[in-house]
Amino acid sequence: MPRPVCYSTKAYSTPSATSPLGAAVIERRQPLAGDVQIQILYCGVCHSDLHYARNEWHFTQYPAVPGHEIVGRVTATGPGVTKFKAGDTVGVGCLVDSCRTCPSCRQGLEQYCDAGMTGGTYGGTEKHLGTPTLGGYSQSIVVTEDFVLRLPANLNPAAAAPLLCAGITTYSPLRHWKVGPGQKVGIVGLGGLGHMGVKFAQAFGAHVVVLTTSPGKAADAKKLGAHEVVVSTDGKQMAVHAGSFDFILDTVSADHDLNALFNLLKREGNLVLVGAPERPQPVASFALIFRRRSFSGSLIGGLPETQEMLDFCGQHGITSDIELIRMDQINTAYERMLQSDVKYRFVIDMATLT
Amino acid sequence: MPRPVCYSTKAYSTPSATSPLGAAVIERRQPLAGDVQIQILYCGVCHSDLHYARNEWHFTQYPAVPGHEIVGRVTATGPGVTKFKAGDTVGVGCLVDSCRTCPSCRQGLEQYCDAGMTGGTYGGTEKHLGTPTLGGYSQSIVVTEDFVLRLPANLNPAAAAPLLCAGITTYSPLRHWKVGPGQKVGIVGLGGLGHMGVKFAQAFGAHVVVLTTSPGKAADAKKLGAHEVVVSTDGKQMAVHAGSFDFILDTVSADHDLNALFNLLKREGNLVLVGAPERPQPVASFALIFRRRSFSGSLIGGLPETQEMLDFCGQHGITSDIELIRMDQINTAYERMLQSDVKYRFVIDMATLT
Repeated sequence: MPRPVCYSTKAYSTPSATSPLGAAVIERRQPLAGDVQIQILYCGVCHSDLHYARNEWHFTQYPAVPGHEIVGRVTATGPGVTKFKAGDTVGVGCLVDSCRTCPSCRQGLEQYCDAGMTGGTYGGTEKHLGTPTLGGYSQSIVVTEDFVLRLPANLNPAAAAPLLCAGITTYSPLRHWKVGPGQKVGIVGLGGLGHMGVKFAQAFGAHVVVLTTSPGKAADAKKLGAHEVVVSTDGKQMAVHAGSFDFILDTVSADHDLNALFNLLKREGNLVLVGAPERPQPVASFALIFRRRSFSGSLIGGLPETQEMLDFCGQHGITSDIELIRMDQINTAYERMLQSDVKYRFVIDMATLT
Repeated sequence: MPRPVCYSTKAYSTPSATSPLGAAVIERRQPLAGDVQIQILYCGVCHSDLHYARNEWHFTQYPAVPGHEIVGRVTATGPGVTKFKAGDTVGVGCLVDSCRTCPSCRQGLEQYCDAGMTGGTYGGTEKHLGTPTLGGYSQSIVVTEDFVLRLPANLNPAAAAPLLCAGITTYSPLRHWKVGPGQKVGIVGLGGLGHMGVKFAQAFGAHVVVLTTSPGKAADAKKLGAHEVVVSTDGKQMAVHAGSFDFILDTVSADHDLNALFNLLKREGNLVLVGAPERPQPVASFALIFRRRSFSGSLIGGLPETQEMLDFCGQHGITSDIELIRMDQINTAYERMLQSDVKYRFVIDMATLT
């Protein structure tokens, strides 16, 4: 197969784990059959961008271009594209391809692809070029139409960008485990993921309790839709809520005490982790055994569910609370993100990459 | 309320965490309204008897009489007893009472009683006497009829004793998580619990794989009903089975690598721990997140399910593989249990306590 024709586009890239990100020119394939070319308008900044840029998961391919919360406008389509046309406002998330034939892919759960999903940033391979995939900190991207999402017209496109990762990562487990009215649901951590978890759990009709180590976040949590706030370092508050939660969505990726959280669950309650602590966390068997509790993990969402989530957000006017930054502010934004100094997601205005 | 009239009965007891068990005389209440008095014929020896006798869970009340896998014959009944009569062959397990009013109790899940189940051995309180409950290493016991089980007549009563704990502890999670035909099920550990797990999973129609660190156990595992055996310390064998299990029942109470086991699970597969490692075990978030796997705990079973299990065993001729011992062999049996030198459960012939 001949190498596809490519074009150049501007991006922000890093050559190593210890370098800052800086301007670069990268190559994208010209749209092939089924491909959609997208001018990127906005790209959210996920904590995992930082993990990946700094090789904290030990599989980064350099030079690396992070970014997987992409909102843009279709500029061209390849032969045979039926779902999109030039001018459409679209989204691209973590997934840009998958095997499409395994049971998970056939069920629309491409994130769990047996062959391994193709991440747009996480060490994936651009199958047409044989090179590492490059993410959304760039002016343009080309993605097969089956991995492109329609963005509801009523949503602010900048504030919608984080829905593509922070949104679906919290929406999917809340839907999968059927969170809804009559349930008491905990959201652990009030960052990019957590604040979306609060919005969705509230929209689904649950009684929402934010669990945070920061007493100062209580007022904001309530503004976002939480009914109660529990300071998780306060033993007395935690004791009051022992054994009372149906479901806990844990968005924290730092080391933290899972067993104290398990003890908040009712019989058969479930704590689902969507944060990804680097180190294994200790789990006390008794915390699970004595009330038949469960501890689960969940990863983003598949294409059908991501579209469903975007449509739900359109119907309910849900977007992320964001701070819009210029592309050249990204290194400072990473430092601020490490200090949890963001409400609640940085989004890059890609028009500033000139 | 006056203290009930008591009678004396022989038992084996220990006065401290470091003492061997020895002959003693204990007091039981005379049957009150609703009570059943039972001559104990056989009592299984659970690993937790040893944990409790040696205060390894730090809540033992001394002098302690272990034993919660009790099979016996009804010798007398108190006023109002309708379910049993003198001469009936019956069983008593871990539970001898509970609050009976909380949601779990009302649902027949007395093991998860909100007020805390009354264990016949595990630091429970004999509510009529206000003294610590004393277990089955004794000639006689008095239990309220609602916590006494009918033993099917066709079962060998000695080999049925371990059903009251090892049996129900493995039966309950296999039923709760609906293990059955078409599923590949792993049983981790081939001891008292594990060998019952193999028998039940096989009886429920699953494809049963024993996961063991001991290659020497393969032939025995197959005799018990396993279709395959995987040596869990053999990376190559483990890799062959990666992502292929629907369900894993983990009966190991020593420290062990849970993450290697999680990696054997399919998408949405579940590992249920019924062993109780003393120390918290490290859980890698990625092992759960990447296939939406779950890690759960399960504790024995409630009274209705324990009766269902005994009836199932009667219909299918299922009992434990046992080694019958004399009461005065109990201290040696504990040492042998620590060496895993038992196939698969010691049962005390209580007629030898004279």
